[in-house]
Amino acid sequence: MSEPVRIAIDAMGGDHGPETVLPGAEISLGRHPDTQFLLFGDEAKIKAVLNGHPKLEASSRIIHTDVVVGMDDKPSQALRRGRYKSSMWRAIDAVKVHDADVAVSAGNTGALMAMANFHLRTMPGISRPAIAALWPTLRGESIVLDVGASIGATAKSLVEMSIMGSAMARVLFDLDTPSVGLLNIGVEDMKGVEEVREAARILKDDGVPVNYHGFVEGNDIGAGTVDVVVTEGFAGNIALKTAEGTAKQLAAYLRAAMGRTVRARLGYLLARDAFQVLKEKMDPRRSNGGVFLGLNGIVIKSHGGADAEGFAAAVDLGYDMVRHQLMARIEKSLVDRPAPPESVRSPQVAEAEGKT
Amino acid sequence: MSEPVRIAIDAMGGDHGPETVLPGAEISLGRHPDTQFLLFGDEAKIKAVLNGHPKLEASSRIIHTDVVVGMDDKPSQALRRGRYKSSMWRAIDAVKVHDADVAVSAGNTGALMAMANFHLRTMPGISRPAIAALWPTLRGESIVLDVGASIGATAKSLVEMSIMGSAMARVLFDLDTPSVGLLNIGVEDMKGVEEVREAARILKDDGVPVNYHGFVEGNDIGAGTVDVVVTEGFAGNIALKTAEGTAKQLAAYLRAAMGRTVRARLGYLLARDAFQVLKEKMDPRRSNGGVFLGLNGIVIKSHGGADAEGFAAAVDLGYDMVRHQLMARIEKSLVDRPAPPESVRSPQVAEAEGKT
Repeated sequence: MSEPVRIAIDAMGGDHGPETVLPGAEISLGRHPDTQFLLFGDEAKIKAVLNGHPKLEASSRIIHTDVVVGMDDKPSQALRRGRYKSSMWRAIDAVKVHDADVAVSAGNTGALMAMANFHLRTMPGISRPAIAALWPTLRGESIVLDVGASIGATAKSLVEMSIMGSAMARVLFDLDTPSVGLLNIGVEDMKGVEEVREAARILKDDGVPVNYHGFVEGNDIGAGTVDVVVTEGFAGNIALKTAEGTAKQLAAYLRAAMGRTVRARLGYLLARDAFQVLKEKMDPRRSNGGVFLGLNGIVIKSHGGADAEGFAAAVDLGYDMVRHQLMARIEKSLVDRPAPPESVRSPQVAEAEGKT
Repeated sequence: MSEPVRIAIDAMGGDHGPETVLPGAEISLGRHPDTQFLLFGDEAKIKAVLNGHPKLEASSRIIHTDVVVGMDDKPSQALRRGRYKSSMWRAIDAVKVHDADVAVSAGNTGALMAMANFHLRTMPGISRPAIAALWPTLRGESIVLDVGASIGATAKSLVEMSIMGSAMARVLFDLDTPSVGLLNIGVEDMKGVEEVREAARILKDDGVPVNYHGFVEGNDIGAGTVDVVVTEGFAGNIALKTAEGTAKQLAAYLRAAMGRTVRARLGYLLARDAFQVLKEKMDPRRSNGGVFLGLNGIVIKSHGGADAEGFAAAVDLGYDMVRHQLMARIEKSLVDRPAPPESVRSPQVAEAEGKT
């Protein structure tokens, strides 16, 4: 039997803290009994919840922490107040010192990314981390990154994201050569920003081990045109939240339309199972969890407002990443990659090689 | 009685040309009998369609043109091939020489913007044009700009877009002080790109005649949090197309769910009226048409694939803009605005004033 998957949980993160996080962890444990948890947070509060969850208790170790990173703390504040001693930091630290294989937190994204980046550092060959989201599509699911780790992206970091997103798609979707598209505002070659066009050229011509599809537009995400959509964090975050907003809006239209007349309400009762299917399709909890890619260790961000089922989906995601060796696959892709061309080498590298 | 509204139509634009464009114009004429049309394009083809539409014929004058701008022509190609002699150019030219009050085209966006910008030029006080879209929301409709005229935006152009978007909202929504939000990836003051933060500072502190709400995120667009959402064209275009894609995706889920079982199909029949309401809410034709703002004249872009009803919506939009004096309102807002602070003056202006 393979080794258990060791998951570090920031038990204090999210809008509801241990009362949601711990039942969520237990749901995931039910699906993956070979999980061991390290629970970081207020010991008394954690124990109070664990009392009602004996299975989770049996698979967990509690590590008491005093400090909680607030949902509204700025990243710099969080680092100043929470370094070394907050539940969030300690969960990340467990990954750093190899006590855990992955950390999961529903805490504030900016603080989590700042701490993870500060403590785990970027992988060799990766210039900066990205947040990858799972996006339900008409063809199943796709991965979209970056949805908000940083604003703007060089051609080099877009190419790195293509490599990392491909590795994640291989892990999650069990595909050999997932297709990758660069998000742009037109499909013609001449459109878009310089960095995106340059990234397209590198992905096409420079032997990067990525199945590059070409440019895709906003509507291609939901259509599932490609398995991996790559963009810089500002546009990616706006796309993600716009889609969430549109889904909510249409659900509200649907509710209103179905309640409008007696006949419609009756029709709704008859079609209830169908609506249940639709509701599940539209359920944001099914794909809850952003994956921080590009660091020396895996960190999963759950939505702060997620309920137990939602948090469980984020824990599942962490489990899958470890079980299917995401880190090793990314490293392998980076090694398989041919030497980067002049145009994307850092000045330092070029200088070290005596070429400038 | 007020003057008629004179609308220049690029009859050859769009995927279907005169066969869709002209019936669309007639639908709009039915709603606004005080419209006069100038129809630019192949006279024989236009006449063939007009034969079946005597009302439109009576309100129209045909101006023959030989050249058609292709839907895939690059902007530079279109300018080279189509300047002076294409139906698209001539429709814009009619606005330039005051033969028409507004031009409407379903032709290719890049070419239309390039020609409009080249021929009409930007208004005094506006650094570059923007494309504004009408966006259906839970509270009604909002205006989102820029959805793709240009990539990137300075703080200055974000402020200009706020002014132009406000004027358009006053015209279309009959509001005295429409609220304006800057699209960003977080609501905290420290988040987002430098240009967006600087624009926020100017809108808050510098007495710009705009009801500034603050930052909004992607999900706020569909929620209708503000009347006008301002962003640069790359993110705006991706938001627009992502929302379109999400709406299509959910409609497909709904169709699939309702056809799955006999009971669901029966329920659907009973609830059909409700679904009709929903379908209308989700109908992209209802808000078809991007408005080019910031030029010395109004140009409306209809979706290239729009049917007659969709093209009619774009013509309606043009009619409303003229009838409610959009241009005069934008000009007034620009004049009402206090002198721009140092930070947003162009170096030339500062120099002319002897301050550098």
